[in-house]
Amino acid sequence: MSTSALKAKKLIELFSSIKPYSQILEEIKIDFDDINGVSKIPGPLSWNRESQTDRIRFLKEQTGVELPYLTGEKIMNDTESLKGNIEQYIGMTQVPTGVIGPLHIHGTLAQGDFYVPLATSEGALVASYNRGARATRLCGGVVSVCLTESVQRAPVFKFKSLSEEGIFLAWLLDKQEIFNDIVSKTSRYAELQDMKINMEGNTCVVIFEYTTGEAAGQNMVTFCTNEICKYILENTPVAPTYWFIESNYAGDKKATAVSFINVRGKKVTAEALIKKDVIKGVLHTTAKDIAQYWQTSSIAAVQSGSIGIQGHFANGLTALFLATGQDVACVSEAFVGITRMETVDDDDLYVSVTLPSLVVGTIGGGTGLPTQNECLQLLNCKGPYSARKFAEICGATVLAGELSIAAAMASGDFSDAHKIFGRKK
Amino acid sequence: MSTSALKAKKLIELFSSIKPYSQILEEIKIDFDDINGVSKIPGPLSWNRESQTDRIRFLKEQTGVELPYLTGEKIMNDTESLKGNIEQYIGMTQVPTGVIGPLHIHGTLAQGDFYVPLATSEGALVASYNRGARATRLCGGVVSVCLTESVQRAPVFKFKSLSEEGIFLAWLLDKQEIFNDIVSKTSRYAELQDMKINMEGNTCVVIFEYTTGEAAGQNMVTFCTNEICKYILENTPVAPTYWFIESNYAGDKKATAVSFINVRGKKVTAEALIKKDVIKGVLHTTAKDIAQYWQTSSIAAVQSGSIGIQGHFANGLTALFLATGQDVACVSEAFVGITRMETVDDDDLYVSVTLPSLVVGTIGGGTGLPTQNECLQLLNCKGPYSARKFAEICGATVLAGELSIAAAMASGDFSDAHKIFGRKK
Amino acid sequence: MSTSALKAKKLIELFSSIKPYSQILEEIKIDFDDINGVSKIPGPLSWNRESQTDRIRFLKEQTGVELPYLTGEKIMNDTESLKGNIEQYIGMTQVPTGVIGPLHIHGTLAQGDFYVPLATSEGALVASYNRGARATRLCGGVVSVCLTESVQRAPVFKFKSLSEEGIFLAWLLDKQEIFNDIVSKTSRYAELQDMKINMEGNTCVVIFEYTTGEAAGQNMVTFCTNEICKYILENTPVAPTYWFIESNYAGDKKATAVSFINVRGKKVTAEALIKKDVIKGVLHTTAKDIAQYWQTSSIAAVQSGSIGIQGHFANGLTALFLATGQDVACVSEAFVGITRMETVDDDDLYVSVTLPSLVVGTIGGGTGLPTQNECLQLLNCKGPYSARKFAEICGATVLAGELSIAAAMASGDFSDAHKIFGRKK
Amino acid sequence: MSTSALKAKKLIELFSSIKPYSQILEEIKIDFDDINGVSKIPGPLSWNRESQTDRIRFLKEQTGVELPYLTGEKIMNDTESLKGNIEQYIGMTQVPTGVIGPLHIHGTLAQGDFYVPLATSEGALVASYNRGARATRLCGGVVSVCLTESVQRAPVFKFKSLSEEGIFLAWLLDKQEIFNDIVSKTSRYAELQDMKINMEGNTCVVIFEYTTGEAAGQNMVTFCTNEICKYILENTPVAPTYWFIESNYAGDKKATAVSFINVRGKKVTAEALIKKDVIKGVLHTTAKDIAQYWQTSSIAAVQSGSIGIQGHFANGLTALFLATGQDVACVSEAFVGITRMETVDDDDLYVSVTLPSLVVGTIGGGTGLPTQNECLQLLNCKGPYSARKFAEICGATVLAGELSIAAAMASGDFSDAHKIFGRKK
Repeated sequence: MSTSALKAKKLIELFSSIKPYSQILEEIKIDFDDINGVSKIPGPLSWNRESQTDRIRFLKEQTGVELPYLTGEKIMNDTESLKGNIEQYIGMTQVPTGVIGPLHIHGTLAQGDFYVPLATSEGALVASYNRGARATRLCGGVVSVCLTESVQRAPVFKFKSLSEEGIFLAWLLDKQEIFNDIVSKTSRYAELQDMKINMEGNTCVVIFEYTTGEAAGQNMVTFCTNEICKYILENTPVAPTYWFIESNYAGDKKATAVSFINVRGKKVTAEALIKKDVIKGVLHTTAKDIAQYWQTSSIAAVQSGSIGIQGHFANGLTALFLATGQDVACVSEAFVGITRMETVDDDDLYVSVTLPSLVVGTIGGGTGLPTQNECLQLLNCKGPYSARKFAEICGATVLAGELSIAAAMASGDFSDAHKIFGRKK
Repeated sequence: MSTSALKAKKLIELFSSIKPYSQILEEIKIDFDDINGVSKIPGPLSWNRESQTDRIRFLKEQTGVELPYLTGEKIMNDTESLKGNIEQYIGMTQVPTGVIGPLHIHGTLAQGDFYVPLATSEGALVASYNRGARATRLCGGVVSVCLTESVQRAPVFKFKSLSEEGIFLAWLLDKQEIFNDIVSKTSRYAELQDMKINMEGNTCVVIFEYTTGEAAGQNMVTFCTNEICKYILENTPVAPTYWFIESNYAGDKKATAVSFINVRGKKVTAEALIKKDVIKGVLHTTAKDIAQYWQTSSIAAVQSGSIGIQGHFANGLTALFLATGQDVACVSEAFVGITRMETVDDDDLYVSVTLPSLVVGTIGGGTGLPTQNECLQLLNCKGPYSARKFAEICGATVLAGELSIAAAMASGDFSDAHKIFGRKK
Repeated sequence: MSTSALKAKKLIELFSSIKPYSQILEEIKIDFDDINGVSKIPGPLSWNRESQTDRIRFLKEQTGVELPYLTGEKIMNDTESLKGNIEQYIGMTQVPTGVIGPLHIHGTLAQGDFYVPLATSEGALVASYNRGARATRLCGGVVSVCLTESVQRAPVFKFKSLSEEGIFLAWLLDKQEIFNDIVSKTSRYAELQDMKINMEGNTCVVIFEYTTGEAAGQNMVTFCTNEICKYILENTPVAPTYWFIESNYAGDKKATAVSFINVRGKKVTAEALIKKDVIKGVLHTTAKDIAQYWQTSSIAAVQSGSIGIQGHFANGLTALFLATGQDVACVSEAFVGITRMETVDDDDLYVSVTLPSLVVGTIGGGTGLPTQNECLQLLNCKGPYSARKFAEICGATVLAGELSIAAAMASGDFSDAHKIFGRKK
Repeated sequence: MSTSALKAKKLIELFSSIKPYSQILEEIKIDFDDINGVSKIPGPLSWNRESQTDRIRFLKEQTGVELPYLTGEKIMNDTESLKGNIEQYIGMTQVPTGVIGPLHIHGTLAQGDFYVPLATSEGALVASYNRGARATRLCGGVVSVCLTESVQRAPVFKFKSLSEEGIFLAWLLDKQEIFNDIVSKTSRYAELQDMKINMEGNTCVVIFEYTTGEAAGQNMVTFCTNEICKYILENTPVAPTYWFIESNYAGDKKATAVSFINVRGKKVTAEALIKKDVIKGVLHTTAKDIAQYWQTSSIAAVQSGSIGIQGHFANGLTALFLATGQDVACVSEAFVGITRMETVDDDDLYVSVTLPSLVVGTIGGGTGLPTQNECLQLLNCKGPYSARKFAEICGATVLAGELSIAAAMASGDFSDAHKIFGRKK
């Protein structure tokens, strides 16, 4: 069965578990009292010590998870555990962390209510994402689906001429089974999915695409590709004049059209249908005005030469990546995507977000550090399939943020909100 | 005197203080013993408690700065100070922080030796940037210059037709003095530099460009533009059918061609000349191989559809932004730029980096938080002109990282370095 | 008076002559018989000899212009006149040419009815553009405005180091008056509008922006910039290590973000309001379906990584450029832009197109060749201001084509139309 | 055997016929007298009638092809043959046409000497491409290879929600054999190669990739996709709320990242090695200066936000497309690509060009028109495999043009060349 056929099968499995939105809407009933409320979380929008204590207790009740490192009750003493995370260590940078939710998600793996931790020093960010989460929850929640996944490593080989390159490629192209073997011997988690070629003159980039289990996987794919390249160099019928393990094509730590068009890490798409009354009660505007804003701002984004069209993916993703020990520098890849907002039946609002390049994981990197580990437990993102689950939470969180900022722009609240939450006094 | 003439004057002032690289090279003498050393900082590449204590003492000696919050000696008790930074507060995310240096910088404002704090959970990152810093220091340091600055807010106005839009623009275009007045009444720090127009059918984006003192300034320009828009709406001869305070053109939290081509925040360019012996001794390769790598990888980056060409700006910037309380989500803007590496006289290597969109500041946002404030003091980045100084430190840090990764790729060390530093055992 | 102030003044003048669309709509009355017609031009959609003769007679009546070279009645004998157009001449490539119209335009310079010649070998193209032209004419025509103009030449200078580059730029930046003098001595038509700088490490691109009278002007700006560079090299306080007259930044023969964001050649925006009955009668669909198509296809265009969003600017522009002796290779610049379609009052359709990079002229290049000259006369595009007039005709033509193709997609006619017109039998 | 395996096999076949460049260099011997010559074609660089006659005779001798329509000796009388090419016909636009060559090509299909017709009104263009062709021929010629091919049509389907979309895709993904059948019944030439999906919220673009025999194939893929869509709509388990036959994702008449990264039409890469003496004698500069120019201008192209990096692909392609009856509007796709120039052994120059999106054909469209047909015969591009052969000629022609313009920039001849050839007197 070919790769594309297998991908088809996966898609079927993925989608079979998702409720149609019409059913979601039938099941929920908007609670108009709730619309006028602020937050299910105690001490809404506050930062003081008392409300913090209430929230910690509330989260314990809701999720069973305690957060002693995050609150400062417990302190990490053993710096030995920092091996693999830092060199020339001088201490711990401390970043204020808030929580939003519950974010209600219908995913293939993320299902139910989630309290999402966000680490940031930017006032109004948590308030805004929380508002978006409320609006979606009142309308039955967010459908969020991890569509596909792949982490790339892309070595480059240069030859004397096209002719030598042709001989090399002819030899290379039927070696995928050998490479699969090499990968399985190098890593327990990595699987080679595909090998692609991009030729330019006497030089070719070879793109190896992997899945990497529950790890983000950048190191894993480096080690595997390194072993593959050793095999190539020992066996190639024609030696390259130059070769490098990464051609700068794989999209590591940068936004690229390749990652945007295909996938890097995980590709997630999420949607929600926001009802008229919730738009009015929670977001203080109308579907028509939000849609008008989004259409106008989409054109302006295109005029500015952005990759994709979105509002502020980076805000929510940075805060969530930071709290959960992701490689935060990957925000430079993950911030790219597409947000779409349009009216449905005149008065309701359809919102979707698509995030094609989420390089995230639930083991490895910073995920095992004390506060980060607690935050992943708060999201119940540990163990098998938890990386894809986490990606679906990312999608739903981002949708909440896009909805809230577009509403703030449409209603004219944007400047005032930042006056209230973004200033010291 | 027109804006462009004033910009010219500024450039002259900026550049008059910079030493020519030939003079820098005359003054330094490469110390071959030092090449074989590892780091001036005690306990090189280590993460254990003892070496941490040595390093803290060393930094105190070198800079006079103590880091009690970072080391955990002191703990923030007063959550009231978190107002403006967070809502629904649950605790502090803690991120391991290392230090590199000294990074020797010849800037217009950043001058001398700097010990740069980097907060990250990615093993090998600090080691790699430290290696790059060493290589540049042994060759006399990095020249790093903040070339220009501007933060944008870009409202959009939509009209019934082109004709109404024409009347509006004709009215708008000579109001800049009135807008200057409004800005000076709204903010002590913001100054309106320019107003630009981008028309599309019956819709026009109006781009207001500000300087914002020592603050990153995103809120400041929102408040000022909000006041300007109030004036516009009260006085315009023709009312827009729609208007929004931000058209999504300004480039906030996204990479755009506009920010890349012009500037967003601060534009910095930095350069260094790395001598043959240092390339061999510290970087274990040759100028020719690094240049060959960079040329090959530049083409591959273009093939991947990246904006600009660079290696991993995001790694260093995320770590430095995080340690110093910047808006880390702005890495989605700042990671874009150009790195260039080429041989000089066959055996030496010229390296330059250009970062056109550094939205950074030394007051406001997270810069006053305990550990972040300490890290800014470590860099002596407080007070007048410190934001531009900080931007020049960003440029030099990024250059160190680009040099080190390119050398790792050229020498074939990349995979091994991540095996040593990027794994738990 | 500064450059931006002058640009403001120009905008005022440009727009003062344009009728508001509401007035246009008041003045026209849709003729329902006409909706069911096909074309005002005799022998609608036909290619045979008889209908050709009728059309030539009709065009003579309407415009006073005869087309003897185009019809083959007259033949160019004197190849001497080909000097400056071709080398190693072997003959004349002959391209079938049709006509659409009348295209009714409300521009700052293009005003009234135009019969637009289109040279192409692609069946259905003329039929489609003609249909779009009809639809707009029945609704009062197209408003098309040339907003601004500028042709660039962008030399690059490289120095030993940033320091030398700073000295050079400090010297360069107040030389604009001297450069103005040089330009006025080099060309009767060119005027230097602005000089911009883009720095990267020790290298700077200097962008000279010109207006070039009625010529497209690429050679003119080369000659002028060459003279400026001679002055620079003779007088600079510090010699560049390298310099080249064109850095490949100016956007000649390529789509660039710079040209898209600013302007290259002429920037035109055009709009029309298409009424419900015309959409139904002429385009066989509804405003809602066209708007839905356009919204959906805009997102897909963004997903594909296009610069801007448009349907097929290149079709109309290539055919019009070819017929009128433009530099057809400039379609690689001109095809970029933005099309927007949205419903107005539910049932009508607003359409706008924006073309930021029309490098066009009415003298020089191929504009004086026999058939090309005739076609420019057919459009009455000769003499002062005719280049901007021609640009406005380009805008209106492109709008007609965008409307027609979007309607074909929305109605499902697209495939059938190409079966009828695009096949030999 | 899977698609990617088949592609591998194709690559092997393609490359097995190409001579290594080292062998090419061994076989040729640079003739120093020839370096000082100008052109093998009679009447070099001239446009007068006498030299035209000599050239026509020469081409007849060399290729056996006569060009009576091009020279005007014969005139097309039967406008009936214009069916499928034009509507509302008014006559023939006439474009001056020159010839360059011989261009010596080592391709998989294009092998030997070619005299390439170029239709243009831009002085210096033919002279420049001819110079580049000479330089390559003196060094053994150009290796030019068609690497892969694919023409896309990309319908879009929109659903009520992600859930419905999932059901649709699960159904769709194993229908490729049925679609193959439909295609084979709809067209004798089209073959469905692949089907890809790009999802965004409740909307998915389905990309059908075809080969289209010797035709450019845009209409062919429309008709086939239309039949496939009919099947889909009749059989889908869930009806889309909207669908359109082209989502604007396929890249028709626009430069896109998708086409640049993958392929649209044909992807060609070509290379040549230019020897020191030829660079000096024919191009009046050195390898080092050309390489320096190209490196500098590559960075500037990136700074300008171009897709890919090239000099003026559009000039040669427009002229060649025009002369041979291609869809000239496709220059808006074809102009994108990568040019690379670097020194080899210090004094020689390696040049490569890569053109990923050549939508070209040798039947259909304008290829059967009188002058266009003659020009295709001049290139011996008729019959099986001639479309790929033609694509390889495009690659070699473009390489000649890139080499010549870069040399003109490096030597400082650029402005003077346009003074001599680009002006009427």
